[in-house]
Amino acid sequence: MFELPSYLNSKREQINSYLEKCFQAAPESGRLIDAMRYSLMAGGKRLRPVLCLAGAEAVGGLAENALPAACALEMIHTYSLIHDDLPAMDNDVLRRGKPTCHVQFDEVTAILAGDALLTMAFQVLSRAESIDSDNHHAVTWLKVIQCISRAAGCWGMVEGQMRDIAAENNTLSRPELERLHALKTGALIEAAVYSGALLGNGTSEQIDQLETYAGCIGLAFQVKDDVLNVEGDPVHLGKGVGTDALRQKSTYPSLMGLEVSKAFARQLIEKALVALESFDNRSDPLRAIANYIIDRKR
Amino acid sequence: MFELPSYLNSKREQINSYLEKCFQAAPESGRLIDAMRYSLMAGGKRLRPVLCLAGAEAVGGLAENALPAACALEMIHTYSLIHDDLPAMDNDVLRRGKPTCHVQFDEVTAILAGDALLTMAFQVLSRAESIDSDNHHAVTWLKVIQCISRAAGCWGMVEGQMRDIAAENNTLSRPELERLHALKTGALIEAAVYSGALLGNGTSEQIDQLETYAGCIGLAFQVKDDVLNVEGDPVHLGKGVGTDALRQKSTYPSLMGLEVSKAFARQLIEKALVALESFDNRSDPLRAIANYIIDRKR
Repeated sequence: MFELPSYLNSKREQINSYLEKCFQAAPESGRLIDAMRYSLMAGGKRLRPVLCLAGAEAVGGLAENALPAACALEMIHTYSLIHDDLPAMDNDVLRRGKPTCHVQFDEVTAILAGDALLTMAFQVLSRAESIDSDNHHAVTWLKVIQCISRAAGCWGMVEGQMRDIAAENNTLSRPELERLHALKTGALIEAAVYSGALLGNGTSEQIDQLETYAGCIGLAFQVKDDVLNVEGDPVHLGKGVGTDALRQKSTYPSLMGLEVSKAFARQLIEKALVALESFDNRSDPLRAIANYIIDRKR
Repeated sequence: MFELPSYLNSKREQINSYLEKCFQAAPESGRLIDAMRYSLMAGGKRLRPVLCLAGAEAVGGLAENALPAACALEMIHTYSLIHDDLPAMDNDVLRRGKPTCHVQFDEVTAILAGDALLTMAFQVLSRAESIDSDNHHAVTWLKVIQCISRAAGCWGMVEGQMRDIAAENNTLSRPELERLHALKTGALIEAAVYSGALLGNGTSEQIDQLETYAGCIGLAFQVKDDVLNVEGDPVHLGKGVGTDALRQKSTYPSLMGLEVSKAFARQLIEKALVALESFDNRSDPLRAIANYIIDRKR
């Protein structure tokens, strides 16, 4: 019987220790590195890196081989949070239960810590240690860099953030909202599963199935986030609730009501589980994560 | 007889047309892409990309093979300018003779356009078209990504920017100032020449010499920048002068005087030219660029 909590704990430990290792190599220390570590090690859920490792395992590969990609994804996710929280953006003061980066340090440091984390992600992805003499491997890593950079930039996450801010005080249609989230959250979640599957040497059929899985859980994740912003507990969440309504943001609850939103998230998770039907029990972590996404309290 | 102006024009044309091509592939259009293009196509000197192409040629390679790296370097340079100009940072309103990105658009758009340009650089560097079936090539591109990401982040440019801002209203020693500039400007200039030489299939001996060259011209470039900030013409420069003194920044002129600074820049250029002595006339562009760096008016 597969136990998600112990799986998550062991993967998070692996991820955190690899992240720490990335900083040990740093020749410079000081305020910039401190700010990067502060936000990166603030105890996030590590959803994206865990999905990446679980993706590698689901196709029969080793999680270790995907570890640099997993950690790069977390660096990119963390940089996006630091920049999203800036005064010019969402102006948030609390994140993961702690003062946001620009509150703890200052605005200049937060902007630069975000920039440096984004850059470090690509340093980790192109690191010599992750490239053995096998050249096939180098091509795979380039594909991973291509997929992650595409998902993170103006083809994905950053464009999603642009639309999210433009959408404040505007009512979006449901397709517009879905596109926004596909860009803002979905793209990086898909890149996490995809890059894991690639580094685990998955077949193209397996990768197709996992892309369906990732698309569904990515959207479900966002619907659940919207739901938590309505009825979540700020103590569990580590951030404020009711902020979407305050900003008059279009959300799934505001467009389709709270109960229909919950049902929609559940349908998406069902569809994600169907996509995993041809996989053996090595995809149990992905199954459990799908359920966790809608059951989570934070 | 080698003519720098026509060389620069032809290379800039190549670079600008490749940069345009990078945007043609974009599936999304709108404000984010507009802001990225606005800053990227604002008519910069293209020093870093030209150095990259000239580095490839100096070792006997083809400039075309280094074009993706050249353009990625310009994207990274442009993103750093956009973020440096932000109100929280240098709060500059003029850049390359035009309103800065956050003035022309807004702060949110400028932050995100910078983020997206940085990300796009790595997308360009890992693009399938730049990887031929020759697998040796894939390893080279990973090395280029490693070298550029290292130079751009907390091991290089971003750390330099942190120190630059911390140095306002502080007097630095000369070694501190030199280290600051080696990080802020030198690292990316070195990465430009290095990645060009790597993509031109340079020998390790050639690459060593070119690193010496790049270190010298990188520092000379900064000394000249400081000099221009004292005695340059704002019309030629496309940006304000006297701003360093206003911000009480430590600069070469403030530490060693204007004339000694100019002589120091000249010495550095001499040293850079000595490093090229064993190269044939294919390194004439690098020689001419070294001289251009101290003769330039902008």
